[in-house]
Amino acid sequence: MPKVGIIMGSDSDLPVMKEAGDMLEKLGIDYEFTVCSAHRLPRETAEYAEKAEERGLDVIIAGAGGAAHLPGVIAASTVVPVIGVPIKTSTLSGVDSLYSIVQMPKGIPVATVAINGSANAAILAAEIIGVKDAKVRQNIKEYRRQMAEEVRNKDRKLKELGAEAYLEQKGGK
Amino acid sequence: MPKVGIIMGSDSDLPVMKEAGDMLEKLGIDYEFTVCSAHRLPRETAEYAEKAEERGLDVIIAGAGGAAHLPGVIAASTVVPVIGVPIKTSTLSGVDSLYSIVQMPKGIPVATVAINGSANAAILAAEIIGVKDAKVRQNIKEYRRQMAEEVRNKDRKLKELGAEAYLEQKGGK
Amino acid sequence: MPKVGIIMGSDSDLPVMKEAGDMLEKLGIDYEFTVCSAHRLPRETAEYAEKAEERGLDVIIAGAGGAAHLPGVIAASTVVPVIGVPIKTSTLSGVDSLYSIVQMPKGIPVATVAINGSANAAILAAEIIGVKDAKVRQNIKEYRRQMAEEVRNKDRKLKELGAEAYLEQKGGK
Amino acid sequence: MPKVGIIMGSDSDLPVMKEAGDMLEKLGIDYEFTVCSAHRLPRETAEYAEKAEERGLDVIIAGAGGAAHLPGVIAASTVVPVIGVPIKTSTLSGVDSLYSIVQMPKGIPVATVAINGSANAAILAAEIIGVKDAKVRQNIKEYRRQMAEEVRNKDRKLKELGAEAYLEQKGGK
Amino acid sequence: MPKVGIIMGSDSDLPVMKEAGDMLEKLGIDYEFTVCSAHRLPRETAEYAEKAEERGLDVIIAGAGGAAHLPGVIAASTVVPVIGVPIKTSTLSGVDSLYSIVQMPKGIPVATVAINGSANAAILAAEIIGVKDAKVRQNIKEYRRQMAEEVRNKDRKLKELGAEAYLEQKGGK
Amino acid sequence: MPKVGIIMGSDSDLPVMKEAGDMLEKLGIDYEFTVCSAHRLPRETAEYAEKAEERGLDVIIAGAGGAAHLPGVIAASTVVPVIGVPIKTSTLSGVDSLYSIVQMPKGIPVATVAINGSANAAILAAEIIGVKDAKVRQNIKEYRRQMAEEVRNKDRKLKELGAEAYLEQKGGK
Amino acid sequence: MPKVGIIMGSDSDLPVMKEAGDMLEKLGIDYEFTVCSAHRLPRETAEYAEKAEERGLDVIIAGAGGAAHLPGVIAASTVVPVIGVPIKTSTLSGVDSLYSIVQMPKGIPVATVAINGSANAAILAAEIIGVKDAKVRQNIKEYRRQMAEEVRNKDRKLKELGAEAYLEQKGGK
Amino acid sequence: MPKVGIIMGSDSDLPVMKEAGDMLEKLGIDYEFTVCSAHRLPRETAEYAEKAEERGLDVIIAGAGGAAHLPGVIAASTVVPVIGVPIKTSTLSGVDSLYSIVQMPKGIPVATVAINGSANAAILAAEIIGVKDAKVRQNIKEYRRQMAEEVRNKDRKLKELGAEAYLEQKGGK
Repeated sequence: MPKVGIIMGSDSDLPVMKEAGDMLEKLGIDYEFTVCSAHRLPRETAEYAEKAEERGLDVIIAGAGGAAHLPGVIAASTVVPVIGVPIKTSTLSGVDSLYSIVQMPKGIPVATVAINGSANAAILAAEIIGVKDAKVRQNIKEYRRQMAEEVRNKDRKLKELGAEAYLEQKGGK
Repeated sequence: MPKVGIIMGSDSDLPVMKEAGDMLEKLGIDYEFTVCSAHRLPRETAEYAEKAEERGLDVIIAGAGGAAHLPGVIAASTVVPVIGVPIKTSTLSGVDSLYSIVQMPKGIPVATVAINGSANAAILAAEIIGVKDAKVRQNIKEYRRQMAEEVRNKDRKLKELGAEAYLEQKGGK
Repeated sequence: MPKVGIIMGSDSDLPVMKEAGDMLEKLGIDYEFTVCSAHRLPRETAEYAEKAEERGLDVIIAGAGGAAHLPGVIAASTVVPVIGVPIKTSTLSGVDSLYSIVQMPKGIPVATVAINGSANAAILAAEIIGVKDAKVRQNIKEYRRQMAEEVRNKDRKLKELGAEAYLEQKGGK
Repeated sequence: MPKVGIIMGSDSDLPVMKEAGDMLEKLGIDYEFTVCSAHRLPRETAEYAEKAEERGLDVIIAGAGGAAHLPGVIAASTVVPVIGVPIKTSTLSGVDSLYSIVQMPKGIPVATVAINGSANAAILAAEIIGVKDAKVRQNIKEYRRQMAEEVRNKDRKLKELGAEAYLEQKGGK
Repeated sequence: MPKVGIIMGSDSDLPVMKEAGDMLEKLGIDYEFTVCSAHRLPRETAEYAEKAEERGLDVIIAGAGGAAHLPGVIAASTVVPVIGVPIKTSTLSGVDSLYSIVQMPKGIPVATVAINGSANAAILAAEIIGVKDAKVRQNIKEYRRQMAEEVRNKDRKLKELGAEAYLEQKGGK
Repeated sequence: MPKVGIIMGSDSDLPVMKEAGDMLEKLGIDYEFTVCSAHRLPRETAEYAEKAEERGLDVIIAGAGGAAHLPGVIAASTVVPVIGVPIKTSTLSGVDSLYSIVQMPKGIPVATVAINGSANAAILAAEIIGVKDAKVRQNIKEYRRQMAEEVRNKDRKLKELGAEAYLEQKGGK
Repeated sequence: MPKVGIIMGSDSDLPVMKEAGDMLEKLGIDYEFTVCSAHRLPRETAEYAEKAEERGLDVIIAGAGGAAHLPGVIAASTVVPVIGVPIKTSTLSGVDSLYSIVQMPKGIPVATVAINGSANAAILAAEIIGVKDAKVRQNIKEYRRQMAEEVRNKDRKLKELGAEAYLEQKGGK
Repeated sequence: MPKVGIIMGSDSDLPVMKEAGDMLEKLGIDYEFTVCSAHRLPRETAEYAEKAEERGLDVIIAGAGGAAHLPGVIAASTVVPVIGVPIKTSTLSGVDSLYSIVQMPKGIPVATVAINGSANAAILAAEIIGVKDAKVRQNIKEYRRQMAEEVRNKDRKLKELGAEAYLEQKGGK
């Protein structure tokens, strides 16, 4: 049973949104992907949101670009927390997506992450589930520990090799 | 029977949207006001859009601010042309509203006018109705004629009085 | 007899504006292309606008980039509804075009669509013609039905294949 | 025992952040206010974050303006979900605050709401707690029901009175 | 005989554009004011531009706000140099005006000055006339000398009084 | 003897600024190129400006990017009209250059053209020289006539060939 | 003997720049104010910079708004570190000032602080002097200690009084 | 013993930050590189800052992108001057980084340089050290002399070759 629903307005958003799925997997959380457009399939979108709670979704991650209405439209029809991922656009670089998602009116919030920040959307979803699920919280801590270790390793290596050699080795990988 | 539906997400948008109503009146077009929020009343909003055609609305004017989803959400559920009015916001001056309204994805357009440009939304609605209604088209032409005459009068008066006296007289009115 | 005039300031806008023509064709609406610059051919531009009504144009779609005056200049000389398409620019990404088109003064509206949104300009033109032409309205509904079906198919396929395989197959096409 | 910690970088943010407290009260959730600056009290800030989990906080709401580091700095030291409220600034209107909060790097998300959107931060906190607490979820639904009813009442009244009388009565209150 | 034509789209621009007139007077250059809208009086606007040369105008200063087409439209129909003054707008602070004026396409330049910079437009006009008129060039030099002297006086006074007393005296004036 | 001095802060601006030289050539105006940096060679820059008048320069065209001080610094030390060309930058696309050039304080104007608009800077220079030189003015008119003819030809060809064939032929050239 | 020179382009910047003087006083550092415009007094400005080192200035703080060239122009003629304070402008809120100051080309840096951040410019000047002067460094630490204590006091008081009473008491002061 | 610490949030910033190291080398100043993330290693980051003074660092250069907290977080825990380098981002081009670094609150300044301006950060560090170290100051002057000479050489060559040949030769190198 999926705990997190990842929904996107178009399959062109999938390369970005897939990172959310990959991160959820790493954090041990079941999820499902849905393509559904607030503008092209308004009824199905509303239905998706209305049934989210009874279907047992704990969090919804919604990605959209441009006049990015999907996260807000979903949020309007459910009390399940909705995380919005503004997708980078070719014309306005995602500023349009960001404003369309984050500037929600009083009453219906969307938890907005960085432009194209779908991996962070997954971690935020895990933190939310972690409020009730100690195992997931443990997984986040473990992920953070690894992340910190990686930074320490890079620092060590940079100090050993110097910048030039470090960049060469990195480029050569 | 109203030909134009003016809808807004909040009654705080009414001072701006009222100008649309006033302009429609001047152009001899019946209209109605509706307050309905895409986020707080998603079902009613969808219903409003779905019934627009059979109710005989020729054009819908939708005003919204911030993550201004209302015009796009309406447009998603009707083939009646939708004109979007981005409302100026206290934080981002309406750039958020503008981007949320104008950057619609392929398939579902919203005819966007200037920030707070609700009078122009009404004139655009009239131009659209004018495609089938010669009387309305005549009214727009008459309105334009008056507008042109006003500019000519101001120019004449400015040339007579000079800038200083003109500004004083204007301030004194 | 063309019902929609598509006009652009430069033939460098043609790759974008051609999408408007293609969409109009799909929706069963006659159209014509014109290259005419508000700055390089001001008289011809004014004449184009002044004759639009008697030539039977129902809608004008005008695309322009940078200080994108064409749509507004056309709108100043006709009561035929004008749809403006802001063309993406290499320096300011089309924000300049968007502001130059959408921020029209009271009295002369331009129905603005998304940056490079010329397909949507065509659909909007169709919605406007649909106010008097039931056949065109039917065509829009049919187009929407197909569009919705496509999204449903993509969703189905994504659920069958999973994200990885879906992206591979898409890339492989 | 507070379930939500509301923290802000300066007491000048209190008028905005107080709305978060008021909303949490309405939704039946215990909270506490803290003034603590990521830049002026870096150690206390880190400590606040490090102890959040064991103190039983379910969610942290952090408001900050300008180079608004507080939410991200808190998020770096806890796995409790952090909601960031970008505070409007006198020079850049809060765009600086928004970018500083939402554009977090991979690994450490902050759930960002609208500029000055602290009431929505509270509702989002409630939705997060609602993942495990049915009573809170019920309270959100009740709040939404009231909010919807209010919009319906305004619509009814506007239709009864007309725009002019409506605005007068509203102004006269 | 006026040497400089100052034209504006609306008499609401007069308080800003009057500064251009005042500066031209100070620099000993004859000028005239005209109110004429590119959108409301397109033919008169074109005619104004077409006759500028034979009427003996050396420079045209055109002020406009929002979708500020006036300077570009004038420039399209004359080879007399056109200086554009972007007027500050209530919604976008004049960024819209600036982009609409400065981003002219290849072939038709507009010499753009700062937002609301109409005094500088006048000085620029004088510099242009100064290319052929030594007396005007002398007047600009004298104006600059005075301006420099004023700054020197302020510096002297600030050093004598100190900041506090200086500000008090200035406030008290 | 050059009539127009084209100056740029770095030879990396030369590909853009060369277009100004090419256009001046086409319009029959002598010019010279100078590389001189307001920041790296402040004295030479001041000297260049101080001697411009006696050397007989009628107009200076100054191109600069980023904190683009060159045009303003030149303008501060001469009454010869200065045209500023904001160069596109890799980070801020030239918005930084534009603001640094156009927003000059009262007293010292810079005639600003579009980002990378150096061809238009040359035409503007010609229009300025045209105030005293009928031959140059004639050349601008001839250039405009050709430009207009080109647009007409493109329009004719587009109408003959249709969009598809037109684009193919253009691509194939 | 002043250690820090505070220079501004216009006495209208004095209310903001005075805060730098007040902060330097608090930190025990001698300073002087100068009004000098890069555009109106280019020679004096260059001279100011050229003599800064021999006059014993350790740091220069330069405030400017709009096309804010002063800090960069000063930096071009001295190796004394220059701190730039972008002054808020009425049209672009200081974004123009910020870009004009911070985007300096390679070779000539300006240490930029926040828009209107002149108090921070003073603290930065103190930190720079602190590199060689232990007493000044001590003063900064003491200032920071006080600042931290103030935040702690506010937090304590807010917790005692609650938000409502706190705001009332603050407003009543 | 390093005099300048160069710290960055991620090794993806190294290609940009390496220029700071190269410039410091050219100016004869010892430095060290550190990779340390304000968000992934908050404790190590604080420790780095807290020990900077006793370790003898005279200046810290901190580069970061997006919600670029690193420079401010470092500055919060040391009185050693901190120079911030906003790294260009793929979505917002570094405007996010710039605002997150430059808009620091009163009390804790960060000396901000241009987006990706890490070479200038090194020169600024040298200018700061130059306040106490005449040898370093001499090195900066020598560097400036060379830089000036290079510009002079380019100017000479451009005048000899003409623009076309100059660009060809440059391209051919």
